[in-house]
Amino acid sequence: MNRGASGYYQALVEGVEPGGRYLYQLDGAALRPDPASRFQPEGVHGPSQIVCADFSWDDTSWFGLPLNRYVFYELHVGTYSREGNFDAIVPRLAELKSLGVTAIELMPVAQFSGNRNWGYDGVFPFAVQNSYGGPAALKALVRACHQQGIAVVLDVVYNHLGPEGNYLGEFGPYFTDRYRTPWGMALNFDGPDSDEVRRFFVENALYWVTDFHIDALRLDAIHAIVDHSAQPFLQELTAAVHQRAAELNRHICVIAESDLNDVRVIQPCHSGGYGFDAQWNDNFHHALHTLLTGEREGYYQDFGQLRHLAKAYAEGFVYSGEHSSFRRRRHGSSSRTIPAERFVVCAQNHDQIGNRMLGDRLSTLICFEALKLAAGVVVLSPYLPLLFMGEEYGESAPFLYFTSHSDAALAEAVRRGRREEFSGFAWQGEVPDPQDEVTFLRSKINYELKDTAGHRTLLDFYRELIRLRGTNPALAYLSKEDTDVIALENKKTLFVRRRCGECEVFVAFSFADSVIAVDAPVPPGRWQRLLDSSDEQWKGDGSLLALKLSSEGEVGLQLNRKSVVIYEKSLEQPI
Amino acid sequence: MNRGASGYYQALVEGVEPGGRYLYQLDGAALRPDPASRFQPEGVHGPSQIVCADFSWDDTSWFGLPLNRYVFYELHVGTYSREGNFDAIVPRLAELKSLGVTAIELMPVAQFSGNRNWGYDGVFPFAVQNSYGGPAALKALVRACHQQGIAVVLDVVYNHLGPEGNYLGEFGPYFTDRYRTPWGMALNFDGPDSDEVRRFFVENALYWVTDFHIDALRLDAIHAIVDHSAQPFLQELTAAVHQRAAELNRHICVIAESDLNDVRVIQPCHSGGYGFDAQWNDNFHHALHTLLTGEREGYYQDFGQLRHLAKAYAEGFVYSGEHSSFRRRRHGSSSRTIPAERFVVCAQNHDQIGNRMLGDRLSTLICFEALKLAAGVVVLSPYLPLLFMGEEYGESAPFLYFTSHSDAALAEAVRRGRREEFSGFAWQGEVPDPQDEVTFLRSKINYELKDTAGHRTLLDFYRELIRLRGTNPALAYLSKEDTDVIALENKKTLFVRRRCGECEVFVAFSFADSVIAVDAPVPPGRWQRLLDSSDEQWKGDGSLLALKLSSEGEVGLQLNRKSVVIYEKSLEQPI
Repeated sequence: MNRGASGYYQALVEGVEPGGRYLYQLDGAALRPDPASRFQPEGVHGPSQIVCADFSWDDTSWFGLPLNRYVFYELHVGTYSREGNFDAIVPRLAELKSLGVTAIELMPVAQFSGNRNWGYDGVFPFAVQNSYGGPAALKALVRACHQQGIAVVLDVVYNHLGPEGNYLGEFGPYFTDRYRTPWGMALNFDGPDSDEVRRFFVENALYWVTDFHIDALRLDAIHAIVDHSAQPFLQELTAAVHQRAAELNRHICVIAESDLNDVRVIQPCHSGGYGFDAQWNDNFHHALHTLLTGEREGYYQDFGQLRHLAKAYAEGFVYSGEHSSFRRRRHGSSSRTIPAERFVVCAQNHDQIGNRMLGDRLSTLICFEALKLAAGVVVLSPYLPLLFMGEEYGESAPFLYFTSHSDAALAEAVRRGRREEFSGFAWQGEVPDPQDEVTFLRSKINYELKDTAGHRTLLDFYRELIRLRGTNPALAYLSKEDTDVIALENKKTLFVRRRCGECEVFVAFSFADSVIAVDAPVPPGRWQRLLDSSDEQWKGDGSLLALKLSSEGEVGLQLNRKSVVIYEKSLEQPI
Repeated sequence: MNRGASGYYQALVEGVEPGGRYLYQLDGAALRPDPASRFQPEGVHGPSQIVCADFSWDDTSWFGLPLNRYVFYELHVGTYSREGNFDAIVPRLAELKSLGVTAIELMPVAQFSGNRNWGYDGVFPFAVQNSYGGPAALKALVRACHQQGIAVVLDVVYNHLGPEGNYLGEFGPYFTDRYRTPWGMALNFDGPDSDEVRRFFVENALYWVTDFHIDALRLDAIHAIVDHSAQPFLQELTAAVHQRAAELNRHICVIAESDLNDVRVIQPCHSGGYGFDAQWNDNFHHALHTLLTGEREGYYQDFGQLRHLAKAYAEGFVYSGEHSSFRRRRHGSSSRTIPAERFVVCAQNHDQIGNRMLGDRLSTLICFEALKLAAGVVVLSPYLPLLFMGEEYGESAPFLYFTSHSDAALAEAVRRGRREEFSGFAWQGEVPDPQDEVTFLRSKINYELKDTAGHRTLLDFYRELIRLRGTNPALAYLSKEDTDVIALENKKTLFVRRRCGECEVFVAFSFADSVIAVDAPVPPGRWQRLLDSSDEQWKGDGSLLALKLSSEGEVGLQLNRKSVVIYEKSLEQPI
């Protein structure tokens, strides 16, 4: 091969056809797959395969989804179905659409070692996992989604590469020892020769949105991307994707996972921000989770008061410079002026479930009424809601941590690491073995559950919430300025009022353990009950008293334990 | 001692007087000086001393210096005089004032090991170096400066502590192993318990400006302060100092040394910047130094064209996103819209001299005419000029790297490190031994040199340049918008036009090696020569032809080799 500019080597090989396989040999060393491989039919150690870029797309009338229309459904391809591949997702799209989901978010699909992995151990960023069906099957899935009007979000990992089959460093200065990540060597985004390292990942982002018609990227753990340059990689990346979106005339969003609570992430580039369209807001999750479960371990120690959830609802970040006990320092900056649509919120996601020793979902931790309450808190927020596969019908299978490394020493290290991580939880039993196939199989969702009694009710409840969110102007309009939040700490009740022009909605969330009476902070008026999670329709304890005018001119309410009630102001007949 | 809030221990001891000495004993371990010691009369390992805070200040009519009035004179206390202390600076202030210097900038004075050190090995950030005269002598120096109307800038080091006597880590979580610096353990500005680490250094900054009436701080190498928090330490620090300035009703500036070429450093906090008033612009130095010396080693490889200096003159950063050969990546962001007063520029400083193997000053590298040219380029720029002690009269003593550690192994490591650093320069001779007192003594300036013929001329030339800078409106007005820069690469000539209202000045800098004829890019008019470095008055080759009207209506000039000529537009009689 001939050395070209910027350290790339090239050769023109005649007569190569799609399906042809190849390896590189570096200066007489071992044969290696292509670091920019498009397909690894035999896994991370095998040859790369030439892939035909042609595909019969039929989504020319699909322009992507505006940010504020996203209702995410996060799924892990391997455990979403018995087959564990892209094809098996397609038959379920109609049901997801009927649920109101507007986007599926795929956990990472870059080629990883073995057949079982969350995806964060990917080592070929451009190759679609062979056991999921490879690149053609992913394209077919995207096409099917767009046919249904469903967007596709892809989780991409630009902070490290996985531990097995990671040959990238042999090809160039992709890694640096100046920084560290919790998961492996840090990528070289600001050191010597980093321009082309950045380009590798920028091109990766453009590859997905261009060649695969992906609608949004979710960047994993950007806080582990260390970069002190004056023009940060992340800025370069969001700008490149947004430019490509303009060229393609499609909505394309870039979403960050970040634990920095730093508004810079979601501020526009011209204000010195990184220019992400949105970011996951873990604070919202933690505030909700602690209220629902009473848990206070680890990072949950910073949460647990109703005011935390109230602040998450009103502002976004709960920690905006306050002292965090868990971090033992002040944390975060204020997101008060950040638009609501820049936050993705959830009651559960792969991390919050899977990073528990036993991978327990909320459905196994809290009661049915509380599950509906959680659904209400997420879906009725002014933020972008995200459900984790199976959450909508109260799936009970755990989502455990699983791997299938072929390197025995690595497998053992992962096993040991997991055991050490949960050494304080021995009373809960044994740490499931990540390498054991059973751990993977146990994590598969039981999709047929959704058709059984209680599960079906929860599913219908989610559907109704999402329908209301999409059709009621006051709920559809994502504006913090038009959202008022009042927390009654001693009543364990959160009131939220949301407005859009003349339309107004008033929601009461009760986290109390029994029926409570409260004065609602709304003016008397003709309020119409839109939804009550206690209603018998939702297999609840039964709806309580309707609104009444109290002696002080306030609106009195009785709220069931763990309930959510939505009222809409009637425009026709004020009293 | 009793444990108080945030991990501090306290005890009230009766009958303590100034002059009393003390040590701390940590849980039965060795006796240690106070990490916040105000004075270490016996050096870094000895006891701390109680210092009386009273001082007879008489500078109530001194309000500090506005940023745009700064003309810096950087000096190293130990080598500025035979005595090597604060007191010995005082008798020279009148002369510095007559030179036009408006501020002296002291290299770090925090207590370091031994008597000989640049100061970047300080280990007691609040204690003034004993061998310099301690805190009282520093206060006396500041008072004397303010009496003369001279501001005092202090170089402070918040990126690491020195290697000997560094006991800070025994007292608390001041350091972190998550990051590294080239000089020692990184300080913990974003990890657990970092709030109080930040406070230690913020209080240090406030201590100097409040208790010592220091007018500006120069923060050493902020690129080595690693901090991923959403509200960065540096933001917190500049905000705290500026708030204190408001309370004290004084101008107080915070200036950064940064090699990031990142405008964020000098952007205001409310725009996501760090809020520094100004920063050193090394690019300016390198662009000038390479033109003067022809050197292309190390980071000088990125410079050497006239256009580099032209860009530094017009914008500030030369590298604003372009590829840097030295860094092997793109570097910097554009400072085009940054006000000129936010940059400090120089032809020499302690680093650019002292980090050479033989510590050679420009005076030993280039000819007399070129020295005057260098002076002109720096002083006539729209930026804040900085001279390094002795530069004004062409001091010929080197400024070498010197230490006086008492730890023999450390001393040897420093010696070896220095030898390795310059292993490629063996043809220049032996690397001076940093620990040898002779190395320190050789670095002392020979102040009496200034009264000898050529030196006196250079001194007068500097004085005249600074006088013009201060009195001519077009030169005094620091505005990039009113500065036009034209580089004639093939003529090695840089033209600069500067305006302020009706006033206009036109400066020609010739880097050529012989007389050249050029058409000046100014309209014909009545231009009056203000200064010509070739003039016999400045011991030059003799002034050449005055301005003339060329046939094309342009202004023709003849310029001497290595010369600077200033013309002013006459307002009275346009032709």
